Amino acid sequence: MRNLFVTLSYNGAAYHGWQRQNNAYTVQQAVEEALSALLGEDITVNGCSRTDAGVHANMYCMTFATSTSIPPRGLILGLNDKLPDDIAVKDCLEVPEDFHARFCCKGKEYVYIVHNSEIKDPFCKDTAMRWRHPVDAALLDKEAKDFVGSHDFKAFCSADCDKDNTVREIYSFNVERKGDRVRFIVSGSGFLYNMVRIMVGTLLYIADGKIPPGSIPGLIASRDRTLTGKTVEPQGLYLNRVFYDKGQMKFEERG
Amino acid sequence: MRNLFVTLSYNGAAYHGWQRQNNAYTVQQAVEEALSALLGEDITVNGCSRTDAGVHANMYCMTFATSTSIPPRGLILGLNDKLPDDIAVKDCLEVPEDFHARFCCKGKEYVYIVHNSEIKDPFCKDTAMRWRHPVDAALLDKEAKDFVGSHDFKAFCSADCDKDNTVREIYSFNVERKGDRVRFIVSGSGFLYNMVRIMVGTLLYIADGKIPPGSIPGLIASRDRTLTGKTVEPQGLYLNRVFYDKGQMKFEERG
Repeated sequence: MRNLFVTLSYNGAAYHGWQRQNNAYTVQQAVEEALSALLGEDITVNGCSRTDAGVHANMYCMTFATSTSIPPRGLILGLNDKLPDDIAVKDCLEVPEDFHARFCCKGKEYVYIVHNSEIKDPFCKDTAMRWRHPVDAALLDKEAKDFVGSHDFKAFCSADCDKDNTVREIYSFNVERKGDRVRFIVSGSGFLYNMVRIMVGTLLYIADGKIPPGSIPGLIASRDRTLTGKTVEPQGLYLNRVFYDKGQMKFEERG
Repeated sequence: MRNLFVTLSYNGAAYHGWQRQNNAYTVQQAVEEALSALLGEDITVNGCSRTDAGVHANMYCMTFATSTSIPPRGLILGLNDKLPDDIAVKDCLEVPEDFHARFCCKGKEYVYIVHNSEIKDPFCKDTAMRWRHPVDAALLDKEAKDFVGSHDFKAFCSADCDKDNTVREIYSFNVERKGDRVRFIVSGSGFLYNMVRIMVGTLLYIADGKIPPGSIPGLIASRDRTLTGKTVEPQGLYLNRVFYDKGQMKFEERG
């Protein structure tokens, strides 16, 4: 058996997230169906992460075991043909048997895209979140730096979060404006459930004056979810990069 | 009664074109329903042009008569709230009673966007057309110049075209590459049914070697639709600008 590592990109608008479910169509199911049809064997894939319904991936990594002898380039082209138009295979390589997309992952980067305008953009209803009030991206970039480091992020985690250990390390957090797009780019060792969307929601509350600048250290210390900003909508969120020890793979970001 | 001139932008993926139809949902119907609901009167709009199912507009112009006294800015915001997410109002101004979006139009510009890659882009399945073979944009830019001028474009018009006069003037035709996007930008006095999509299809046949470079003058002279390239898919086509005598209105192009 070969262990193949595949990088995907997908528009999550039509899917109930990555993870296979009994009663909803997911990206994992679409990928497994395409792979099984292409290879003529029952394929189960191991993904690097869950993603929520409506969330996208510029780079998503997975591994699977197969007995096929098709070379990687043939798999890329063949699988792309079998997959729906909103899921693409970007790369494929053979990895050691013990390499696992999730357990070997050393960190991830997410991008959250805000379309900051009074007037909607009809071409990004599923791929960006609109925020009407003017956002001071330079202020938020400064505020976002308070997330960097190892902290207990319990206040930035959905109430549904069932993790005992809510300490995570944020490597970097930048906020940039390009025209009417504001991009929040955050990388870290790992993320709690809804953590990126609550961090972005909290920064947007700071932009709107609902939370004063300088509050983030205190909000982290509070460990109180009721004090932080709202969980912003899924359609602005992209899993952007996934880090492994064997070289850091970088794909172009969108936005 | 006031005569209001409105510029829209829309993603045509979900619509059967602009023009109202009895048995299919169109952009015109969506706009008229939103306007009628907002203003509490029965509104019929006059559009600048038909667009086909799946075709987009970065700028679309229309006029309508109304007895409302709501100022233009209020109409822009109110109508945007009523419209579906894939149709936006960009501007609104009061024009003389005899100004008509279609009859006063002096010309139009279309953009056709090709995603030129072996690997699909999951974020543009409805907003660009994928062409797998590498396209030499510099060659096509040179070839496209043979369309410029007043010509009988019968060979570049759908067989369904019912126009007696098939002479049109092309003002400019440029082909540009930015990364894996190739953009075809053509402006002219007017366009026959499917004319832009057949001109782009013919240029792509030249890129693929199915039609030799230098053929366009002969193809125009032939007046024979069977000799020109295919009608490329609608999802790459955008009405990009509409020209009127009273100043040329310019909106940002996509791509």
